[in-house]
Amino acid sequence: MSRHTVTHEEGAIYEFAPDMDPIAAVKPGTSITIETRDSLDGEVQTDSDLIETIPDEVNAATGPIAVEGATPGDVLVVEVEEIRLTEDHGRVVTIDGFGLLDGKPEIEAPRSRVTPVEDGIISFNGIDVVVDPVIGTIGVAPREEEYTTLVPHDHGGNLDTTDVTAGNTLYFPVFQPEAMLAMGDCKAAMADGEMCGTGSEIATSIDVTIDVIQNPAIDLNRPLVETPDKWKTLASAETMEAASKLANQDAVELLAAEHDMDTTDAYMLSSLIGGLEISQVVDPLVTVRNTIPKTHLSNPF
Amino acid sequence: MSRHTVTHEEGAIYEFAPDMDPIAAVKPGTSITIETRDSLDGEVQTDSDLIETIPDEVNAATGPIAVEGATPGDVLVVEVEEIRLTEDHGRVVTIDGFGLLDGKPEIEAPRSRVTPVEDGIISFNGIDVVVDPVIGTIGVAPREEEYTTLVPHDHGGNLDTTDVTAGNTLYFPVFQPEAMLAMGDCKAAMADGEMCGTGSEIATSIDVTIDVIQNPAIDLNRPLVETPDKWKTLASAETMEAASKLANQDAVELLAAEHDMDTTDAYMLSSLIGGLEISQVVDPLVTVRNTIPKTHLSNPF
Repeated sequence: MSRHTVTHEEGAIYEFAPDMDPIAAVKPGTSITIETRDSLDGEVQTDSDLIETIPDEVNAATGPIAVEGATPGDVLVVEVEEIRLTEDHGRVVTIDGFGLLDGKPEIEAPRSRVTPVEDGIISFNGIDVVVDPVIGTIGVAPREEEYTTLVPHDHGGNLDTTDVTAGNTLYFPVFQPEAMLAMGDCKAAMADGEMCGTGSEIATSIDVTIDVIQNPAIDLNRPLVETPDKWKTLASAETMEAASKLANQDAVELLAAEHDMDTTDAYMLSSLIGGLEISQVVDPLVTVRNTIPKTHLSNPF
Repeated sequence: MSRHTVTHEEGAIYEFAPDMDPIAAVKPGTSITIETRDSLDGEVQTDSDLIETIPDEVNAATGPIAVEGATPGDVLVVEVEEIRLTEDHGRVVTIDGFGLLDGKPEIEAPRSRVTPVEDGIISFNGIDVVVDPVIGTIGVAPREEEYTTLVPHDHGGNLDTTDVTAGNTLYFPVFQPEAMLAMGDCKAAMADGEMCGTGSEIATSIDVTIDVIQNPAIDLNRPLVETPDKWKTLASAETMEAASKLANQDAVELLAAEHDMDTTDAYMLSSLIGGLEISQVVDPLVTVRNTIPKTHLSNPF
């Protein structure tokens, strides 16, 4: 049986909403391939294609994909196996009103730089950068509100997190029946912070295995990432301080449960191991993660 | 000739000031040993020794050490060779009014946990944490204002940065004649973020080699860290957003000079490689760094 492929032509969303119609359905334990277009819908093919303002629709997320049997309170598991680039070039852009250094007189916006890709290397203005793909936007149907695909929140969305890459596994709270997974907005490479507002935005084909944890041992409030040797809580909020507090609070809860200690001791332990990391500082809400090495935290589910 | 040792009994500061009297003097190129006491001046020897409020004097920094010939506009180089723990225990504390989760009802402050050290392992409440020492406070005489050793700024100070460790080299702007280096506030281990407000605070003996770069090729405005494979700009400000902007701006300037590109292209490149990292989120100013791999940035001096 060939592997099921879901393409962005079949359907892509620009908003994660509580009530969405799926374009495909899978059973837990299924491995599928998801094809995504670039975050700017192909608008930038040369350096002359400038993005004057943030489009109303960006970060098309292929889906949603219904996961049969997933029920609110469950945890959706997305194991990212491989991310293949399906274009021979990405693009990095600045957009007026967007980006960490936006508004500084020496920063020109809009500007577009097409970045050719060859043999695992991106060329940015003649400078080689190793390809290291990232899925920028990935999430599920939220609990109550709608979020455009420019916004990250507890449902995932525009997390722009370098750990969302091949070899790692994502865990999302299931807020709505059948979870409704969607993803897109991939980058051929991206720095932690995504300072100019983009990485090298590019179309991809992603292999994932989707599963569901029923009756998880913890209440998952926000996305969690598992790498080969770490667990990372992910939190998005108005400020980096607020996001740091949420990410740390979630890590502290995991440590307290693991080591059967009170919240204060777990908080003190969190100040010794792993630590806070920056996902992105440019989206309408910013995203921070708190890493705990697996030596100090086993599978919390 | 035996290695020169400077001890905290000879002198330690609780404030980095433009005009300070040195307790020792070294020539550029000298390797010395600096002994430091713990950030709480030995006040916490058992779990019952509680720190009710932040003391007026914390983070005693051994020094200042005059570096002969260092002149404003030069760069002070501090290569950290080894950090030895000189106590058999450190301490982790919470203090009311201090720390990322301060004020949450489930967080108890003050609390103190003494952390025995044996064979390269700290024991926190019976949990093993690998010793990985950090110099929390290190800096030079500032340009104009005084900063207590609780505050990080462009002169260094309370940077609480895990990269300030053995094997790495620190670069500071020289603001005052003879630079006036001081350091202390070491931790046996600390997480990026230093969430509860401390790592495992401990006395140490630090081997460093001190040097001076005259006529540096760049104007260094803030501390810079060199690891075996990365350069990291370090910036402290009122908010993490503001610190991120400064750290990124400094990284962008280095990339622009290296690759002979304009600021906007360097900014876009910074969004593809390395990235923003969190040093600490608990001091009166917070500290963020922007990492650039050496594959993309050679020695900027």
